[in-house]
Amino acid sequence: MTRVLLLDGLTEVDPTTPVLRADDLGVLRGESVFETCRIGNGRAAFLDAHLVRLTESARRLDIALPPGWRELAEKAATGVDDGVLRLVCSKGAPDAGPVGFALVTAVPEETRRGREQGVAVVTLSLGVTAEERISSPWLLGGVKATSYAMNMASLRHAHAAGADDVIWVSGDGQVLEAPTSTVGIVVDGTLVSPPAEVGILPGTTLGAVSGQVPFAQRPVTLAELRGADEVMLLSSVRGVAPVVRLDGAERPVGPVTARLRDWYEAAVRG
Amino acid sequence: MTRVLLLDGLTEVDPTTPVLRADDLGVLRGESVFETCRIGNGRAAFLDAHLVRLTESARRLDIALPPGWRELAEKAATGVDDGVLRLVCSKGAPDAGPVGFALVTAVPEETRRGREQGVAVVTLSLGVTAEERISSPWLLGGVKATSYAMNMASLRHAHAAGADDVIWVSGDGQVLEAPTSTVGIVVDGTLVSPPAEVGILPGTTLGAVSGQVPFAQRPVTLAELRGADEVMLLSSVRGVAPVVRLDGAERPVGPVTARLRDWYEAAVRG
Repeated sequence: MTRVLLLDGLTEVDPTTPVLRADDLGVLRGESVFETCRIGNGRAAFLDAHLVRLTESARRLDIALPPGWRELAEKAATGVDDGVLRLVCSKGAPDAGPVGFALVTAVPEETRRGREQGVAVVTLSLGVTAEERISSPWLLGGVKATSYAMNMASLRHAHAAGADDVIWVSGDGQVLEAPTSTVGIVVDGTLVSPPAEVGILPGTTLGAVSGQVPFAQRPVTLAELRGADEVMLLSSVRGVAPVVRLDGAERPVGPVTARLRDWYEAAVRG
Repeated sequence: MTRVLLLDGLTEVDPTTPVLRADDLGVLRGESVFETCRIGNGRAAFLDAHLVRLTESARRLDIALPPGWRELAEKAATGVDDGVLRLVCSKGAPDAGPVGFALVTAVPEETRRGREQGVAVVTLSLGVTAEERISSPWLLGGVKATSYAMNMASLRHAHAAGADDVIWVSGDGQVLEAPTSTVGIVVDGTLVSPPAEVGILPGTTLGAVSGQVPFAQRPVTLAELRGADEVMLLSSVRGVAPVVRLDGAERPVGPVTARLRDWYEAAVRG
């Protein structure tokens, strides 16, 4: 079901047709921003929040984001019952400017399984303290760029350790985020998640579900993570995934996690 | 003078022709490795060292590097008197595998000026300690991936501060590398550069020039950098660039730097 549409003219092209030049700065230097949305029932879910974040990421990478993303997303999602929509804007070739496109793919079976059965997670240190992440904008905390090699290397590290996913912690033991998800914990019935100020991406899925339960955004330590009543990873495509193993310790799927997962799935369907 | 050749068949294509698909994992996730070589007199200079590093980077990113890079580089450099050769291998689309290409461009005027007149540099902390970089392979220290958004953000930060370039230091005050160069200092006539073991890229240009003078590879502190007799940045295209301002303090072009710069320029010409 792969489908590719160019921002320029909203034209659909054969998905095997190359769309980026060899001298595109996104290709050469990872200077490219993106968003991944869930498509449900022919609509890109929570599109507004994704477009806000895309605009902010482009600003941070000094990419002159062209207009037309909403129309592109809506056209790309039309007729798709359940799927993944990526919106990508590359900085482009020096003589040509930014190139935007939408890519629609199926939800991977493994992603669906993680949502339904939960995921095993290991924590990995990013070394940097939360304080340093805040005061060092060049570390690009909170920017969704395609410079994801470290994110992917972290996931490969998890897979080699027999886990599905990773939660990054700072050098001073603060919980940050996962390579492609936001971290949420439940403490005494309250959903708690680290604030964007520690240099993490503001989660659109967290934003979507946080109105459904008592919610607090505040720093979370590694000890709190391990001692939490429930732990979940939130992302657009997988939705709300229960963490059922954390650094080797088994955990049940908690009631708040299950409720938010169901709520999100229903909301995605519209 | 932009020229693009595909690894597949060593065919030259119009440089404005797109070469990467929308679903290429290099495009979507920065899972792509590269090398930048200087072309002098129709040859890619120090090609062996670049090919060794490309192979190691691909291994670290789990990219099945196809063969044929030497032939590609040689064909791309043919007839070019002075230029930049990029060799790029993207992980490719899930159903198609890696895509390799060579991109030849002119040496930017600004790069030539930095080599001849020197560069102004500011130091920026990466937060992580040298120790943590060594023990955390997922941070990808020493891998030349196209996930360069942080490198580019660091350079933009330098430009906003009125400087040309950056030297990254670790959270515990160890000199690391520059976003696109290796750092060298001269102490009592000896060229000193931090070891690859602190999680930095082994510099091909450093490797090329290090036989010309007394040379030591050992950890370098920020205090030593500031107190050094000479400071230089080494990279394939700019060559050996004297640092003539460091965190605001003016410095003359030193004799060892000037000698290595001239030696490298002659070596590139073959």
